[in-house]
Amino acid sequence: MTKTAVLVHGLGNIGKAVIEAVEASPDMECVGVVRSPSSVGTKKNDLRGLADYPGLNALLKAGAKPQVAVICGPSRLVPEDAARYLAAGLNTVDSFDIHDRIPDVLTAMDGQAKAAGRVAVTAAGWDPGTDSVLRALFEAMTPVGVTFTNFGRGRSMGHSVAARAIDGVADAISITIPIGGGRHSRLVYVLAEAGAKQDDIRSRLAADAYFAHDPLEVRFAADAAELASIADNSHGVLMERIGASGFASNQRLSFDMRIDNPALTAQVLVAAARASTRLQAGAYTLIDIPMVALLPGERMTHVARLV
Amino acid sequence: MTKTAVLVHGLGNIGKAVIEAVEASPDMECVGVVRSPSSVGTKKNDLRGLADYPGLNALLKAGAKPQVAVICGPSRLVPEDAARYLAAGLNTVDSFDIHDRIPDVLTAMDGQAKAAGRVAVTAAGWDPGTDSVLRALFEAMTPVGVTFTNFGRGRSMGHSVAARAIDGVADAISITIPIGGGRHSRLVYVLAEAGAKQDDIRSRLAADAYFAHDPLEVRFAADAAELASIADNSHGVLMERIGASGFASNQRLSFDMRIDNPALTAQVLVAAARASTRLQAGAYTLIDIPMVALLPGERMTHVARLV
Repeated sequence: MTKTAVLVHGLGNIGKAVIEAVEASPDMECVGVVRSPSSVGTKKNDLRGLADYPGLNALLKAGAKPQVAVICGPSRLVPEDAARYLAAGLNTVDSFDIHDRIPDVLTAMDGQAKAAGRVAVTAAGWDPGTDSVLRALFEAMTPVGVTFTNFGRGRSMGHSVAARAIDGVADAISITIPIGGGRHSRLVYVLAEAGAKQDDIRSRLAADAYFAHDPLEVRFAADAAELASIADNSHGVLMERIGASGFASNQRLSFDMRIDNPALTAQVLVAAARASTRLQAGAYTLIDIPMVALLPGERMTHVARLV
Repeated sequence: MTKTAVLVHGLGNIGKAVIEAVEASPDMECVGVVRSPSSVGTKKNDLRGLADYPGLNALLKAGAKPQVAVICGPSRLVPEDAARYLAAGLNTVDSFDIHDRIPDVLTAMDGQAKAAGRVAVTAAGWDPGTDSVLRALFEAMTPVGVTFTNFGRGRSMGHSVAARAIDGVADAISITIPIGGGRHSRLVYVLAEAGAKQDDIRSRLAADAYFAHDPLEVRFAADAAELASIADNSHGVLMERIGASGFASNQRLSFDMRIDNPALTAQVLVAAARASTRLQAGAYTLIDIPMVALLPGERMTHVARLV
């Protein structure tokens, strides 16, 4: 079996886990990591023996022939990163997670992918991503009803980044805690900058758009070690829908998962990378892709096992 | 909006619920029911004002223009029924549930559908069907691990039919009870024929292939009314998977649903009928179809709402 050749772009939590998920996949191989030039050569252990390069051209010059770029950089950079890889003739997959920008990003990628004759799969993590698949499936099963997506308890990357941007905050971790009905409270652990007043930080956090609409508790860590001691990758979701199929109410569906967050995101990216080699040119989200395309091996084998 | 014209084949529990689910759908309409000639004219209330016909030709002569036949007869007749409707130029959808025959049925339907330039969606209930989608999704998220599909508590149609075929049994209802690890016990309520010995019926049931491998309890109903008093449509499933994403074990996924059984099956059939109008000629199961194709309306609207 010829393995699908994958390039990993970025070596944060997600990129590191993508390398592992590719290594664990029977039908894929990682042909190199592209990182910012200032990072090349650091975090050698995370590379698991792979070579890293400051850009795609350096990787290609070294003789690698990647088919799919798995983009593991920050979401805000995904659109430009994907455009560059698509133009260079690679498929792309990403876990872009700025929900309200997804339709526009998808439309732009669709044009770029079709122009290049390649495939882009975007928003392919767990939310957006596999949760999106479940929301669509639940609606197909019960067209009238309400879905609640309850996140956590777990560390929110987006809210942590927002908290770090607050004046007087040296570092922060924001924990999402579900309080029912798809609503959440935020528990923010803050390492304050020297001289910053705790009450000022509390007020600024409470006024920030990321935190203003939810119950908020702020706790202060004594030092970086205390903050690091709570920075594990556990997360989860409870998705609940109660609705009607036809004229029958009281149809009750729920999905509960408890996971290592970057490991699941990376695994979904790898499944999406596999699917990208089976789709016609264009851009897709996970609700646009048949589930069987995410799995290694032959369709009929899966029909016999899973249907 | 032009509505998709649906023909309902068969008027049992599922057919009746399909009529209701179509009536509740904004984008579909039912143009008639095809039933066995001996049934035409009976169960008028279940028709909800629709006309019934002894065959497709009679329905076409009356001026109806169906695009999709929703096949709601017994599973064993689905292959021949689908072949006939495909040859007549209709798409077909069914909830064929004889798991080990699905690959062969799918392959045969694929040939028939492509020859007719039409679409067949088979095994489109909840198991097989939406459970199949979940099993595939869970494997994509955690490629290494074990999935348990725990059914019930609820009435099993297949086991009830098998129990009714036992010598000395006038009527029977078989309840499936999950006992963990994807295993089940069977609780069979039997209305015995006059003169039949209860111990003989117990022995025959215990020896039957449907019941021989699971814990079995047999209870005898005093009369038809007592049996009818437990024949509700409640059912459910708990699907559990514990596995690894990449190198991260302890990924825990579960799906729990509690439903009116024919109402959900019918709703999935209606969603599959909708999808059939959006697919290229050929035969599909639900794992072969993007989730967004199951939903009414425009793809981008769903991307914006659900992804």
